[in-house]
Amino acid sequence: MAEERLTLEEARTLAFRCLRANGCDEANAGAVAANMALAERDICSSHGLFRLPWHVHSLRTGKANGRAKPRLETLAPGVIKVHGDRGFAPLGHAIGRQPLIEAARRNGIAAMAYVDMYHIAALWPETEALALEGFVAFAFTASLPYVAAHGGTKPIFGTNPMAFAWPRQDRPPLVFDQASAAMARGEIMIAGRDGHELPENVGIDAQGRPTRDPKAVLQGAQLPFGGHKGAALALMIELLAGPLIGDFLSIEAEEDDAGAGAAPHGGELIIALDPRRFGDPQGYFDHAEKLFAAILSDGRSRLPGDRRIANRERTKKEGIAIPQSLHESILALMKGPDSRGAPA
Amino acid sequence: MAEERLTLEEARTLAFRCLRANGCDEANAGAVAANMALAERDICSSHGLFRLPWHVHSLRTGKANGRAKPRLETLAPGVIKVHGDRGFAPLGHAIGRQPLIEAARRNGIAAMAYVDMYHIAALWPETEALALEGFVAFAFTASLPYVAAHGGTKPIFGTNPMAFAWPRQDRPPLVFDQASAAMARGEIMIAGRDGHELPENVGIDAQGRPTRDPKAVLQGAQLPFGGHKGAALALMIELLAGPLIGDFLSIEAEEDDAGAGAAPHGGELIIALDPRRFGDPQGYFDHAEKLFAAILSDGRSRLPGDRRIANRERTKKEGIAIPQSLHESILALMKGPDSRGAPA
Repeated sequence: MAEERLTLEEARTLAFRCLRANGCDEANAGAVAANMALAERDICSSHGLFRLPWHVHSLRTGKANGRAKPRLETLAPGVIKVHGDRGFAPLGHAIGRQPLIEAARRNGIAAMAYVDMYHIAALWPETEALALEGFVAFAFTASLPYVAAHGGTKPIFGTNPMAFAWPRQDRPPLVFDQASAAMARGEIMIAGRDGHELPENVGIDAQGRPTRDPKAVLQGAQLPFGGHKGAALALMIELLAGPLIGDFLSIEAEEDDAGAGAAPHGGELIIALDPRRFGDPQGYFDHAEKLFAAILSDGRSRLPGDRRIANRERTKKEGIAIPQSLHESILALMKGPDSRGAPA
Repeated sequence: MAEERLTLEEARTLAFRCLRANGCDEANAGAVAANMALAERDICSSHGLFRLPWHVHSLRTGKANGRAKPRLETLAPGVIKVHGDRGFAPLGHAIGRQPLIEAARRNGIAAMAYVDMYHIAALWPETEALALEGFVAFAFTASLPYVAAHGGTKPIFGTNPMAFAWPRQDRPPLVFDQASAAMARGEIMIAGRDGHELPENVGIDAQGRPTRDPKAVLQGAQLPFGGHKGAALALMIELLAGPLIGDFLSIEAEEDDAGAGAAPHGGELIIALDPRRFGDPQGYFDHAEKLFAAILSDGRSRLPGDRRIANRERTKKEGIAIPQSLHESILALMKGPDSRGAPA
């Protein structure tokens, strides 16, 4: 596959200019591009420039608002609300982060109810940003109905990721970000394109029968990871990112989209805990490191996020590579509205 | 198997008297027995009277304190600490619940850091109790090192359950309570006793090799459910119930036990959210019901906890049945200290 090499700054600028050419103002384009560059830095390519055409399509269909002005509201001493004004997620994160941190510092624990926005980025950056400020953080978001409930036949849940971050001293936080689905939808699409069978327990067909045929799964439903336990997590995340904060369920996001094929319109719940207020302000750093050392002691385990952290050291020096075809698509999208913004 | 039939009140009284005969004061015996009766009511038999011999053993070895006086401390406006005084978990829950509820009502979100106690009950009762008061709740606790880290060979994590509860109108809350381990340790023991093979991906032997031999798994390590995603949850729960609140890691709980075979000594984190303070106070009940109805609409799915709720209707009328052998063990344990309190 022909590749285009870019520095991280070039990747960020490319995203920024493409978003600007498609109706984003500086603040929105800047926040999305900076976040996308974080994904490229860590070689989370599926959440990097790869997602730019979907952003553009969401703008061109009039669903996402490139000039969103996210607005803060205080719902309770420990609860901040961010109204997203139909924008992409990163700008609201930037605006809500400091108030969330202040509330968590004051109360020991605080939450951000982020509504009316489009989240198609990775979920780890917002939790890592909080952990870099010293907080333990959770994030939860829903998406579009792709995943069946336990024992069910129809797609009900989004891929419904959750992220968790734990601060460390003198090194990047420990962070994981994982979907409730057994396999990423993009991987299933690629298996379908390449004629490969799926592993078992990844999906069911439209009649609810287990299948390893990727095309049948895309017509049917994905399965959660880990059977009924993963399904319970998907349900929990759907409740937290939807009814709790007054935003869409995944099945409602699909209705809202009305066939436009835009990014899912919905909400996100973030919870931040201040570990200096939970009873062991002197000890928690070293205590966690004792656990991490035990995990690593057999030389066979690694910690969640270790690969991303290693990648970021490398890409800072070497830059990144994206497929030539993606690079060309992005350049074409910068010439203004046409049909090439549709998601693959 | 010969069985003994009991009413729920008889089950509670049996537990209470057995605990009293083994050094518990009224408050501690009452709280544990009431909680055990909830497990029996829902036919969560593995957390009911079945656990009584382990409680007695933990008392007789001098590890658990049957006369614990749990003590409250306010760490922050949104963080309550309960010092367990080495008692069993239920009494501290009873003491901490109202202050936690008040903090969550005031701030929208609050947490309880519960330390220095012995938790060998189910985890759902404390989250259900909060949901019955209208709160969304999480609970997390660690245990003893049984479960390997992802890719690892040695047991590091406890079975590390998490529970989640969502309040419903005019019916019991939706609650799930699930271990991070793929299979309950008790089930592995029973498979070993009966000479059955385990399913795949349940455990590894002492050399870290996958095995379906239950005895080899008990010498080696259990595996988390759902591969690296379940392992990440186990790690998160270990951090929340240990370093965050200043209590033991599972590997430290084993050191603290020093071969006594008592219940795990450790901590628990509970988080309560007031859904009336998250932006949709009028809508959240019905909105969640819309999701539940969608899940149930194909007639093939059920909601987490549905079986327990059906069981409780039945046991209220019919009472429960416990193995004759367990009943006899409990009666023997009531006659005062002997060796039969050791866990099976």
